[in-house]
Amino acid sequence: MSIIRKIFSNSRSPEDGIFFTDIQKILGFKPLNLECYRRAFTHRSSNKLDSNGNAVNYERLEFLGDAMLSSVIAAYLFKEVPSGDEGYLTKMRSKIVSREHLNELGRDLNLISFIESKVPTQHFGENIHGNIFEALVGAIYLDKGYTYCEKFIQKRVVKPYVDIAKLEGKVISYKSLLIEWCQKEKKVFHYDVFEDNGISGERFFGVKLSIDKKVIAKARATSKKKAEEIASKRAYFAFQQKIDNK
Amino acid sequence: MSIIRKIFSNSRSPEDGIFFTDIQKILGFKPLNLECYRRAFTHRSSNKLDSNGNAVNYERLEFLGDAMLSSVIAAYLFKEVPSGDEGYLTKMRSKIVSREHLNELGRDLNLISFIESKVPTQHFGENIHGNIFEALVGAIYLDKGYTYCEKFIQKRVVKPYVDIAKLEGKVISYKSLLIEWCQKEKKVFHYDVFEDNGISGERFFGVKLSIDKKVIAKARATSKKKAEEIASKRAYFAFQQKIDNK
Repeated sequence: MSIIRKIFSNSRSPEDGIFFTDIQKILGFKPLNLECYRRAFTHRSSNKLDSNGNAVNYERLEFLGDAMLSSVIAAYLFKEVPSGDEGYLTKMRSKIVSREHLNELGRDLNLISFIESKVPTQHFGENIHGNIFEALVGAIYLDKGYTYCEKFIQKRVVKPYVDIAKLEGKVISYKSLLIEWCQKEKKVFHYDVFEDNGISGERFFGVKLSIDKKVIAKARATSKKKAEEIASKRAYFAFQQKIDNK
Repeated sequence: MSIIRKIFSNSRSPEDGIFFTDIQKILGFKPLNLECYRRAFTHRSSNKLDSNGNAVNYERLEFLGDAMLSSVIAAYLFKEVPSGDEGYLTKMRSKIVSREHLNELGRDLNLISFIESKVPTQHFGENIHGNIFEALVGAIYLDKGYTYCEKFIQKRVVKPYVDIAKLEGKVISYKSLLIEWCQKEKKVFHYDVFEDNGISGERFFGVKLSIDKKVIAKARATSKKKAEEIASKRAYFAFQQKIDNK
Protein backbone atom coordinates (compact mmCIF):
# COMPACT_ATOMS: atom_id res chain seq x y z
CA MET A 1 0.00 0.00 0.00
CA SER A 2 1.53 3.34 -1.00
CA ILE A 3 2.05 6.03 1.62
CA ILE A 4 -0.37 8.39 -0.14
CA ARG A 5 -3.05 5.77 -0.14
CA LYS A 6 -2.37 5.14 3.54
CA ILE A 7 -2.81 8.83 4.32
CA PHE A 8 -6.00 9.28 2.36
CA SER A 9 -7.66 6.06 3.32
CA ASN A 10 -7.97 3.95 6.41
CA SER A 11 -9.40 1.03 4.54
CA ARG A 12 -7.41 -1.76 2.95
CA SER A 13 -6.43 -1.74 -0.71
CA PRO A 14 -8.31 -4.24 -2.89
CA GLU A 15 -5.24 -6.53 -3.02
CA ASP A 16 -4.87 -6.37 0.76
CA GLY A 17 -8.57 -7.10 1.10
CA ILE A 18 -8.26 -10.31 -0.92
CA PHE A 19 -5.13 -11.34 0.97
CA PHE A 20 -6.86 -10.59 4.29
CA THR A 21 -9.83 -12.78 3.38
CA ASP A 22 -7.64 -15.64 2.13
CA ILE A 23 -5.45 -15.55 5.22
CA GLN A 24 -8.43 -15.34 7.54
CA LYS A 25 -9.83 -18.51 5.93
CA ILE A 26 -6.57 -20.36 6.59
CA LEU A 27 -6.11 -19.02 10.12
CA GLY A 28 -9.67 -19.30 11.33
CA PHE A 29 -9.40 -15.81 12.87
CA LYS A 30 -8.80 -12.25 11.72
CA PRO A 31 -5.17 -11.27 11.21
CA LEU A 32 -4.12 -7.94 12.74
CA ASN A 33 -0.88 -7.08 11.02
CA LEU A 34 -0.95 -8.26 7.41
CA GLU A 35 2.75 -7.45 7.03
CA CYS A 36 3.69 -10.46 9.17
CA TYR A 37 1.84 -12.76 6.78
CA ARG A 38 3.20 -11.07 3.66
CA ARG A 39 6.66 -11.75 5.01
CA ALA A 40 5.78 -15.40 5.65
CA PHE A 41 5.24 -15.76 1.90
CA THR A 42 8.20 -13.71 0.70
CA HIS A 43 11.00 -15.84 -0.74
CA ARG A 44 14.58 -14.63 -0.41
CA SER A 45 14.81 -14.31 -4.21
CA SER A 46 12.58 -11.22 -3.91
CA ASN A 47 15.64 -9.46 -2.39
CA LYS A 48 13.46 -7.24 -0.23
CA LEU A 49 15.02 -5.09 2.51
CA ASP A 50 13.42 -3.12 5.32
CA SER A 51 14.32 0.50 6.12
CA ASN A 52 17.29 -0.68 8.22
CA GLY A 53 18.67 -2.79 5.42
CA ASN A 54 17.61 -6.11 6.98
CA ALA A 55 16.44 -8.84 4.61
CA VAL A 56 12.67 -9.28 4.47
CA ASN A 57 11.79 -12.88 3.71
CA TYR A 58 10.32 -15.87 5.49
CA GLU A 59 13.54 -17.50 6.70
CA ARG A 60 13.65 -15.91 10.15
CA LEU A 61 9.95 -16.64 10.58
CA GLU A 62 10.65 -20.30 9.85
CA PHE A 63 13.00 -20.38 12.85
CA LEU A 64 10.32 -18.79 15.02
CA GLY A 65 7.52 -21.03 13.73
CA ASP A 66 9.58 -24.17 14.19
CA ALA A 67 10.14 -23.24 17.85
CA MET A 68 6.43 -22.56 18.41
CA LEU A 69 5.40 -25.83 16.76
CA SER A 70 7.83 -27.75 18.95
CA SER A 71 6.58 -26.22 22.16
CA VAL A 72 2.86 -26.43 21.35
CA ILE A 73 3.20 -30.08 20.31
CA ALA A 74 5.34 -30.81 23.39
CA ALA A 75 2.63 -29.42 25.67
CA TYR A 76 -0.08 -31.28 23.76
CA LEU A 77 1.73 -34.62 24.04
CA PHE A 78 2.62 -34.01 27.68
CA LYS A 79 -1.05 -33.59 28.56
CA GLU A 80 -2.44 -36.17 26.14
CA VAL A 81 -0.12 -39.08 26.98
CA PRO A 82 0.43 -39.10 30.75
CA SER A 83 2.03 -42.53 30.57
CA GLY A 84 4.66 -41.61 27.98
CA ASP A 85 8.19 -41.08 29.22
CA GLU A 86 10.61 -38.42 27.97
CA GLY A 87 11.91 -40.65 25.18
CA TYR A 88 8.43 -41.49 23.97
CA LEU A 89 7.33 -37.85 23.97
CA THR A 90 10.45 -36.83 22.03
CA LYS A 91 9.89 -39.56 19.43
CA MET A 92 6.21 -38.73 18.95
CA ARG A 93 6.99 -35.06 18.56
CA SER A 94 9.57 -35.70 15.86
CA LYS A 95 6.97 -37.73 13.95
CA ILE A 96 4.43 -34.92 14.16
CA VAL A 97 6.80 -32.14 13.13
CA SER A 98 8.74 -34.22 10.61
CA ARG A 99 9.76 -32.48 7.39
CA GLU A 100 7.49 -34.81 5.46
CA HIS A 101 4.51 -34.03 7.63
CA LEU A 102 5.07 -30.26 7.54
CA ASN A 103 5.34 -30.43 3.75
CA GLU A 104 2.00 -32.22 3.64
CA LEU A 105 0.41 -29.57 5.88
CA GLY A 106 1.71 -26.72 3.74
CA ARG A 107 0.70 -28.46 0.52
CA ASP A 108 -2.81 -29.23 1.71
CA LEU A 109 -3.34 -25.55 2.56
CA ASN A 110 -1.90 -24.65 -0.84
CA LEU A 111 0.28 -22.03 0.82
CA ILE A 112 2.54 -21.90 -2.21
CA SER A 113 -0.17 -20.03 -4.10
CA PHE A 114 0.62 -16.96 -1.94
CA ILE A 115 4.35 -16.99 -2.51
CA GLU A 116 6.19 -13.91 -3.71
CA SER A 117 9.34 -14.99 -5.49
CA LYS A 118 11.55 -14.32 -8.47
CA VAL A 119 12.05 -18.06 -8.87
CA PRO A 120 9.16 -19.87 -10.59
CA THR A 121 7.33 -21.99 -8.01
CA GLN A 122 7.89 -25.19 -10.02
CA HIS A 123 11.63 -24.76 -9.39
CA PHE A 124 11.19 -25.13 -5.64
CA GLY A 125 11.73 -28.49 -4.00
CA GLU A 126 9.17 -30.27 -1.83
CA ASN A 127 10.42 -28.57 1.35
CA ILE A 128 9.05 -25.19 0.34
CA HIS A 129 5.61 -26.34 1.55
CA GLY A 130 6.82 -27.15 5.05
CA ASN A 131 9.04 -24.09 5.20
CA ILE A 132 6.22 -21.66 4.53
CA PHE A 133 3.96 -23.57 6.88
CA GLU A 134 6.54 -22.99 9.64
CA ALA A 135 6.89 -19.35 8.60
CA LEU A 136 3.12 -18.93 8.78
CA VAL A 137 3.15 -20.25 12.36
CA GLY A 138 5.92 -17.75 13.13
CA ALA A 139 3.84 -14.95 11.60
CA ILE A 140 0.86 -15.88 13.77
CA TYR A 141 3.05 -15.72 16.87
CA LEU A 142 4.34 -12.28 15.89
CA ASP A 143 0.91 -10.98 14.98
CA LYS A 144 -1.26 -12.46 17.74
CA GLY A 145 0.93 -14.19 20.33
CA TYR A 146 1.30 -17.66 21.71
CA THR A 147 -2.34 -18.47 22.42
CA TYR A 148 -3.43 -17.91 18.83
CA CYS A 149 -0.43 -19.85 17.64
CA GLU A 150 -1.57 -22.71 19.84
CA LYS A 151 -5.15 -22.46 18.52
CA PHE A 152 -3.96 -22.56 14.93
CA ILE A 153 -1.68 -25.56 15.54
CA GLN A 154 -4.50 -27.31 17.36
CA LYS A 155 -6.86 -26.73 14.42
CA ARG A 156 -4.46 -27.33 11.54
CA VAL A 157 -1.97 -29.84 12.87
CA VAL A 158 -3.31 -31.69 15.89
CA LYS A 159 -6.98 -32.12 15.08
CA PRO A 160 -6.83 -33.32 11.50
CA TYR A 161 -3.49 -35.11 11.51
CA VAL A 162 -2.32 -36.19 14.92
CA ASP A 163 -3.47 -39.53 15.96
CA ILE A 164 -1.40 -41.09 18.64
CA ALA A 165 -2.54 -44.66 18.01
CA LYS A 166 -1.55 -44.32 14.37
CA LEU A 167 1.77 -42.63 15.16
CA GLU A 168 2.56 -45.51 17.46
CA GLY A 169 1.86 -47.89 14.62
CA LYS A 170 -1.07 -49.47 16.48
CA VAL A 171 -3.54 -48.46 13.79
CA ILE A 172 -2.26 -48.73 10.24
CA SER A 173 -5.36 -47.59 8.44
CA TYR A 174 -8.69 -46.32 9.67
CA LYS A 175 -10.22 -47.29 6.37
CA SER A 176 -9.45 -50.97 6.89
CA LEU A 177 -10.56 -50.76 10.53
CA LEU A 178 -13.86 -49.26 9.45
CA ILE A 179 -14.44 -51.72 6.59
CA GLU A 180 -13.77 -54.62 8.93
CA TRP A 181 -16.31 -53.30 11.39
CA CYS A 182 -18.93 -52.71 8.67
CA GLN A 183 -18.51 -56.25 7.37
CA LYS A 184 -18.81 -57.75 10.83
CA GLU A 185 -21.90 -55.63 11.53
CA LYS A 186 -23.41 -56.33 8.09
CA LYS A 187 -23.51 -52.63 7.32
CA VAL A 188 -23.38 -51.28 3.80
CA PHE A 189 -20.66 -48.68 3.33
CA HIS A 190 -19.87 -46.50 0.38
CA TYR A 191 -17.07 -44.02 -0.36
CA ASP A 192 -18.30 -41.37 -2.75
CA VAL A 193 -15.22 -39.67 -4.28
CA PHE A 194 -15.31 -36.55 -6.43
CA GLU A 195 -12.57 -34.34 -7.79
CA ASP A 196 -12.63 -30.78 -6.60
CA ASN A 197 -10.32 -28.14 -8.00
CA GLY A 198 -11.20 -25.46 -5.46
CA ILE A 199 -10.52 -21.81 -6.08
CA SER A 200 -6.78 -22.19 -6.55
CA GLY A 201 -6.86 -24.67 -9.41
CA GLU A 202 -4.90 -27.28 -7.44
CA ARG A 203 -6.30 -30.79 -7.49
CA PHE A 204 -8.28 -31.77 -4.44
CA PHE A 205 -10.40 -34.79 -3.74
CA GLY A 206 -13.55 -34.81 -1.72
CA VAL A 207 -14.97 -37.92 -0.12
CA LYS A 208 -18.33 -38.67 1.44
CA LEU A 209 -18.51 -41.83 3.47
CA SER A 210 -21.98 -43.30 3.84
CA ILE A 211 -22.93 -46.19 6.07
CA ASP A 212 -26.37 -47.71 5.55
CA LYS A 213 -27.12 -44.88 3.13
CA LYS A 214 -26.48 -42.19 5.73
CA VAL A 215 -23.56 -39.78 5.19
CA ILE A 216 -21.39 -40.26 8.27
CA ALA A 217 -18.27 -38.26 7.44
CA LYS A 218 -16.80 -35.95 4.82
CA ALA A 219 -13.19 -35.09 4.05
CA ARG A 220 -11.11 -33.23 1.51
CA ALA A 221 -7.43 -33.80 0.74
CA THR A 222 -4.81 -33.75 -1.98
CA SER A 223 -5.26 -37.43 -2.83
CA LYS A 224 -8.20 -39.80 -3.01
CA LYS A 225 -6.51 -42.19 -0.58
CA LYS A 226 -5.85 -39.44 1.96
CA ALA A 227 -9.38 -38.10 1.78
CA GLU A 228 -10.81 -41.61 2.27
CA GLU A 229 -8.53 -42.17 5.23
CA ILE A 230 -9.54 -38.88 6.87
CA ALA A 231 -13.23 -39.60 6.33
CA SER A 232 -12.75 -43.11 7.75
CA LYS A 233 -10.97 -41.72 10.79
CA ARG A 234 -13.78 -39.23 11.40
CA ALA A 235 -16.36 -41.97 11.09
CA TYR A 236 -14.28 -44.22 13.31
CA PHE A 237 -14.21 -41.67 16.09
CA ALA A 238 -17.92 -40.98 15.66
CA PHE A 239 -18.56 -44.70 16.05
CA GLN A 240 -15.73 -45.39 18.44
CA GLN A 241 -17.79 -46.35 21.44
CA LYS A 242 -19.91 -48.70 19.39
CA ILE A 243 -16.82 -50.30 17.85
CA ASP A 244 -14.96 -50.57 21.14
CA ASN A 245 -17.92 -52.19 22.86
CA LYS A 246 -18.26 -54.96 20.29
CA MET B 1 -0.27 -33.77 52.96
CA SER B 2 -2.46 -36.59 54.26
CA ILE B 3 -6.08 -36.84 53.15
CA ILE B 4 -7.32 -36.37 56.71
CA ARG B 5 -5.31 -33.19 57.08
CA LYS B 6 -6.67 -32.01 53.75
CA ILE B 7 -10.23 -32.59 54.94
CA PHE B 8 -9.79 -30.87 58.25
CA SER B 9 -7.77 -27.94 57.09
CA ASN B 10 -7.72 -25.68 54.08
CA SER B 11 -4.41 -24.16 54.98
CA ARG B 12 -1.03 -25.51 53.96
CA SER B 13 0.98 -27.86 56.15
CA PRO B 14 4.10 -26.33 57.71
CA GLU B 15 6.34 -28.20 55.21
CA ASP B 16 4.21 -27.00 52.30
CA GLY B 17 4.37 -23.50 53.69
CA ILE B 18 8.17 -23.53 53.69
CA PHE B 19 8.29 -25.05 50.20
CA PHE B 20 5.78 -22.46 48.97
CA THR B 21 7.89 -19.59 50.30
CA ASP B 22 11.12 -21.01 48.87
CA ILE B 23 9.58 -21.62 45.46
CA GLN B 24 7.96 -18.20 45.42
CA LYS B 25 11.39 -16.63 46.01
CA ILE B 26 12.83 -18.48 43.04
CA LEU B 27 9.86 -17.86 40.76
CA GLY B 28 9.19 -14.25 41.62
CA PHE B 29 5.45 -15.00 41.79
CA LYS B 30 3.10 -17.18 43.81
CA PRO B 31 2.81 -20.80 42.66
CA LEU B 32 -0.73 -22.15 42.37
CA ASN B 33 -0.32 -25.89 42.30
CA LEU B 34 2.57 -26.95 44.52
CA GLU B 35 2.37 -30.50 43.17
CA CYS B 36 3.85 -29.40 39.83
CA TYR B 37 6.92 -28.06 41.62
CA ARG B 38 7.24 -31.07 43.93
CA ARG B 39 7.35 -33.22 40.82
CA ALA B 40 10.03 -31.00 39.29
CA PHE B 41 12.28 -31.97 42.19
CA THR B 42 11.41 -35.66 42.37
CA HIS B 43 14.15 -37.92 41.09
CA ARG B 44 13.20 -41.23 39.45
CA SER B 45 14.95 -43.11 42.26
CA SER B 46 12.03 -42.12 44.50
CA ASN B 47 9.97 -44.65 42.51
CA LYS B 48 6.79 -42.64 42.98
CA LEU B 49 3.65 -43.55 41.03
CA ASP B 50 0.37 -41.68 40.60
CA SER B 51 -3.03 -43.32 41.06
CA ASN B 52 -2.94 -44.56 37.44
CA GLY B 53 0.43 -46.21 37.89
CA ASN B 54 2.34 -43.54 35.93
CA ALA B 55 5.81 -42.64 37.16
CA VAL B 56 5.98 -39.36 39.08
CA ASN B 57 9.37 -37.72 38.59
CA TYR B 58 10.85 -34.74 36.81
CA GLU B 59 11.82 -36.42 33.54
CA ARG B 60 8.66 -35.61 31.57
CA LEU B 61 8.78 -32.06 32.91
CA GLU B 62 12.32 -31.74 31.55
CA PHE B 63 10.96 -32.45 28.06
CA LEU B 64 8.27 -29.80 28.53
CA GLY B 65 10.64 -27.23 30.03
CA ASP B 66 13.20 -27.74 27.29
CA ALA B 67 10.52 -27.00 24.68
CA MET B 68 9.38 -23.86 26.51
CA LEU B 69 12.94 -22.58 26.92
CA SER B 70 13.59 -23.10 23.21
CA SER B 71 10.52 -21.20 22.12
CA VAL B 72 10.85 -18.33 24.59
CA ILE B 73 14.51 -17.84 23.67
CA ALA B 74 13.66 -18.11 19.96
CA ALA B 75 11.08 -15.33 20.27
CA TYR B 76 13.47 -13.22 22.34
CA LEU B 77 16.28 -13.52 19.79
CA PHE B 78 13.90 -12.95 16.88
CA LYS B 79 12.81 -9.62 18.35
CA GLU B 80 16.17 -8.60 19.79
CA VAL B 81 18.36 -9.26 16.74
CA PRO B 82 16.43 -8.15 13.65
CA SER B 83 19.55 -8.43 11.53
CA GLY B 84 20.32 -12.05 12.43
CA ASP B 85 19.48 -14.70 9.87
CA GLU B 86 18.07 -18.15 10.64
CA GLY B 87 21.53 -19.68 11.08
CA TYR B 88 22.62 -16.94 13.45
CA LEU B 89 19.46 -17.23 15.55
CA THR B 90 19.84 -21.01 15.77
CA LYS B 91 23.47 -20.72 16.86
CA MET B 92 22.75 -18.07 19.49
CA ARG B 93 19.91 -20.10 20.90
CA SER B 94 22.08 -23.20 21.30
CA LYS B 95 24.60 -21.12 23.21
CA ILE B 96 21.93 -19.81 25.56
CA VAL B 97 20.29 -23.17 26.23
CA SER B 98 23.52 -25.17 26.22
CA ARG B 99 23.83 -27.94 28.78
CA GLU B 100 26.65 -26.05 30.45
CA HIS B 101 24.62 -22.87 30.73
CA LEU B 102 21.53 -24.65 32.07
CA ASN B 103 23.70 -26.39 34.66
CA GLU B 104 25.03 -23.02 35.75
CA LEU B 105 21.49 -21.62 36.04
CA GLY B 106 20.31 -24.57 38.12
CA ARG B 107 23.40 -24.49 40.30
CA ASP B 108 23.16 -20.77 40.97
CA LEU B 109 19.56 -21.18 42.14
CA ASN B 110 20.72 -24.11 44.29
CA LEU B 111 17.77 -26.14 42.99
CA ILE B 112 19.42 -29.36 44.10
CA SER B 113 18.65 -28.47 47.71
CA PHE B 114 14.98 -29.27 46.97
CA ILE B 115 15.56 -32.65 45.41
CA GLU B 116 13.75 -35.71 46.62
CA SER B 117 15.80 -38.77 45.80
CA LYS B 118 16.96 -42.11 47.13
CA VAL B 119 20.38 -41.47 45.60
CA PRO B 120 22.62 -39.14 47.64
CA THR B 121 22.93 -35.81 45.82
CA GLN B 122 26.72 -36.05 45.68
CA HIS B 123 26.31 -39.10 43.41
CA PHE B 124 24.62 -37.03 40.72
CA GLY B 125 26.63 -35.69 37.81
CA GLU B 126 26.80 -32.03 36.83
CA ASN B 127 23.77 -32.33 34.53
CA ILE B 128 21.35 -32.72 37.40
CA HIS B 129 21.42 -28.92 37.85
CA GLY B 130 20.35 -28.22 34.27
CA ASN B 131 17.84 -31.05 34.27
CA ILE B 132 15.95 -29.74 37.27
CA PHE B 133 16.16 -26.23 35.92
CA GLU B 134 14.38 -27.44 32.76
CA ALA B 135 11.90 -29.39 34.87
CA LEU B 136 11.18 -26.26 36.90
CA VAL B 137 10.39 -24.35 33.68
CA GLY B 138 8.06 -27.21 32.68
CA ALA B 139 6.36 -27.03 36.07
CA ILE B 140 5.78 -23.29 35.66
CA TYR B 141 4.15 -23.90 32.28
CA LEU B 142 1.87 -26.55 33.77
CA ASP B 143 0.99 -24.46 36.79
CA LYS B 144 0.64 -21.00 35.29
CA GLY B 145 0.89 -21.19 31.50
CA TYR B 146 3.12 -19.75 28.82
CA THR B 147 3.16 -16.11 29.89
CA TYR B 148 4.50 -16.88 33.36
CA CYS B 149 6.99 -19.27 31.83
CA GLU B 150 8.17 -16.43 29.63
CA LYS B 151 8.39 -14.04 32.60
CA PHE B 152 10.47 -16.51 34.56
CA ILE B 153 12.84 -17.17 31.67
CA GLN B 154 13.16 -13.44 31.10
CA LYS B 155 14.05 -12.87 34.74
CA ARG B 156 16.25 -15.91 35.36
CA VAL B 157 17.85 -16.61 32.01
CA VAL B 158 17.71 -13.61 29.72
CA LYS B 159 18.24 -10.69 32.07
CA PRO B 160 21.16 -11.90 34.15
CA TYR B 161 22.91 -14.13 31.63
CA VAL B 162 22.09 -13.37 28.05
CA ASP B 163 24.28 -10.84 26.49
CA ILE B 164 24.35 -10.96 22.76
CA ALA B 165 27.63 -9.07 22.37
CA LYS B 166 29.31 -11.53 24.69
CA LEU B 167 27.72 -14.57 23.03
CA GLU B 168 29.02 -13.30 19.73
CA GLY B 169 32.48 -13.07 21.25
CA LYS B 170 32.60 -9.31 20.77
CA VAL B 171 32.93 -8.66 24.49
CA ILE B 172 35.12 -11.10 26.36
CA SER B 173 34.83 -9.59 29.81
CA TYR B 174 32.82 -6.70 31.17
CA LYS B 175 35.24 -6.42 34.05
CA SER B 176 38.14 -5.57 31.75
CA LEU B 177 35.92 -3.23 29.72
CA LEU B 178 34.93 -1.39 32.88
CA ILE B 179 38.46 -1.21 34.31
CA GLU B 180 39.71 0.19 31.02
CA TRP B 181 37.06 2.89 31.09
CA CYS B 182 37.77 3.78 34.76
CA GLN B 183 41.48 4.12 34.04
CA LYS B 184 40.86 6.32 31.03
CA GLU B 185 38.42 8.48 32.99
CA LYS B 186 40.67 8.59 36.07
CA LYS B 187 37.98 7.05 38.21
CA VAL B 188 38.74 5.03 41.31
CA PHE B 189 37.04 1.64 41.28
CA HIS B 190 36.85 -1.01 43.95
CA TYR B 191 35.41 -4.53 44.03
CA ASP B 192 34.32 -5.41 47.53
CA VAL B 193 33.98 -9.21 47.73
CA PHE B 194 32.49 -11.10 50.64
CA GLU B 195 31.56 -14.72 51.09
CA ASP B 196 27.91 -15.41 51.72
CA ASN B 197 26.63 -18.85 52.59
CA GLY B 198 22.96 -17.98 52.28
CA ILE B 199 20.25 -20.05 53.87
CA SER B 200 21.14 -23.26 52.08
CA GLY B 201 24.73 -23.54 53.26
CA GLU B 202 26.09 -23.49 49.68
CA ARG B 203 28.97 -21.14 49.02
CA PHE B 204 28.02 -17.88 47.40
CA PHE B 205 30.01 -14.75 46.75
CA GLY B 206 28.69 -11.26 46.92
CA VAL B 207 30.32 -8.33 45.21
CA LYS B 208 29.83 -4.59 45.55
CA LEU B 209 31.39 -2.50 42.84
CA SER B 210 32.13 1.09 43.81
CA ILE B 211 33.29 3.80 41.46
CA ASP B 212 34.52 6.99 43.06
CA LYS B 213 33.37 5.67 46.42
CA LYS B 214 29.77 5.24 45.25
CA VAL B 215 28.28 1.73 45.09
CA ILE B 216 27.26 1.32 41.44
CA ALA B 217 26.32 -2.34 41.23
CA LYS B 218 25.90 -5.46 43.33
CA ALA B 219 25.91 -9.11 42.34
CA ARG B 220 25.88 -12.56 43.87
CA ALA B 221 27.10 -15.77 42.25
CA THR B 222 28.74 -19.10 42.91
CA SER B 223 32.24 -17.80 42.28
CA LYS B 224 34.06 -14.57 43.02
CA LYS B 225 34.95 -14.19 39.35
CA LYS B 226 31.37 -14.65 38.20
CA ALA B 227 29.99 -12.21 40.76
CA GLU B 228 32.57 -9.59 39.72
CA GLU B 229 31.68 -10.10 36.08
CA ILE B 230 27.95 -9.72 36.73
CA ALA B 231 28.50 -6.58 38.80
CA SER B 232 30.75 -5.17 36.05
CA LYS B 233 28.13 -5.91 33.41
CA ARG B 234 25.45 -4.17 35.48
CA ALA B 235 27.70 -1.16 35.98
CA TYR B 236 28.61 -1.21 32.30
CA PHE B 237 24.98 -1.01 31.25
CA ALA B 238 24.30 1.67 33.83
CA PHE B 239 27.15 3.68 32.35
CA GLN B 240 26.72 2.50 28.79
CA GLN B 241 25.75 5.80 27.25
CA LYS B 242 28.65 7.56 28.93
CA ILE B 243 31.09 4.91 27.75
CA ASP B 244 29.70 4.80 24.22
CA ASN B 245 29.86 8.55 23.87
CA LYS B 246 33.56 8.80 24.76
